[in-house]
Amino acid sequence: MAYNITSLNELTAQFEKLPGIGKKTAQRLALFVITSPEEYASRFAAALTDAKRRIHLCPSCQSLTDVDICPVCADPLRDKGVICVVSDPKDVLAFERTREYKGVYHVLHGVISPLDGVGPEKLKIRELLARLSDSSVKEVIMATDPTVEGEATASYISRLIKPMGIKITRLAYGVPVGANLEYADTVTLQRALEGRNEI
Amino acid sequence: MAYNITSLNELTAQFEKLPGIGKKTAQRLALFVITSPEEYASRFAAALTDAKRRIHLCPSCQSLTDVDICPVCADPLRDKGVICVVSDPKDVLAFERTREYKGVYHVLHGVISPLDGVGPEKLKIRELLARLSDSSVKEVIMATDPTVEGEATASYISRLIKPMGIKITRLAYGVPVGANLEYADTVTLQRALEGRNEI
Repeated sequence: MAYNITSLNELTAQFEKLPGIGKKTAQRLALFVITSPEEYASRFAAALTDAKRRIHLCPSCQSLTDVDICPVCADPLRDKGVICVVSDPKDVLAFERTREYKGVYHVLHGVISPLDGVGPEKLKIRELLARLSDSSVKEVIMATDPTVEGEATASYISRLIKPMGIKITRLAYGVPVGANLEYADTVTLQRALEGRNEI
Repeated sequence: MAYNITSLNELTAQFEKLPGIGKKTAQRLALFVITSPEEYASRFAAALTDAKRRIHLCPSCQSLTDVDICPVCADPLRDKGVICVVSDPKDVLAFERTREYKGVYHVLHGVISPLDGVGPEKLKIRELLARLSDSSVKEVIMATDPTVEGEATASYISRLIKPMGIKITRLAYGVPVGANLEYADTVTLQRALEGRNEI
């Protein structure tokens, strides 16, 4: 007879669904929670449901927020005329850590990737075009990952925007090609912002 | 102004408390949960509170269980005359995966480690001695980790048990010295059980 603890297996299964967490690590994490003081599990559980319940997409820039409009869009000091287009909410956090960028964002929630069945219609491109129809936008910075899919997405969107006569720029290749934006260090991201080129 | 999402930060902080999870990984995991379908966060939260609420120590062997008495102690086919003493609940799961061992366990919940302030009184040694006072126990297998602390704990307990006239054995060094038991493979653990020696 195998030694089964149903609720331990269930918790292990939930940890195993996380990216980069294998079976043994999942069991290790589950056992850590179980052998930790009572309040850890309850605070962790509360944090999970709380974050999921409160966090939604900002109706304007589509980034994650737990208030009505995200702090960047709500900030009167941010330049609404410059929109930095990123693929992922993580990238907004990475740019905000530079404390250099004064414009606003637009989060696509993915990149065009035909092999994964992700076409342009699955991204928040329609929402971006709606924002651009407001004539106050002067520049769109394409800040998708410097990968094949990121480049393809940037050039696809650029072609859509070009007729609107808005200036379109792309991050300078300060960021190492083939890597993910979220792991770029602050200085590299600053260089990339400063050296941006018109497409 | 920094971009703060309070409930995201709180969830990230909870992930960061897990062993081996750093700040960036914690944020990555938190964002994964937030961008996953609704039911994942709620099932995860339920699994956390459920596991913590249901799982307790088996009153006999001190291993983790979510039923009154653990399945090993409750199994009439297991030999109650042989007790395998391990330091951690993880080790019970590792031995059970071999499907070879037919005795029962005793979980110490740690090893003697003066540098970490863990003396013998913090381990479940008293509970072990109480079990041994029942004359039906024929053999105690010392299966603490083959580390300095594990060895010291095994020899400390052996000295306490010796006067009772019970046979005491130690796992054979099939397990690589200096490693942790939970990472030993099934065959290695089987060899270690088969080649056990009387102390």
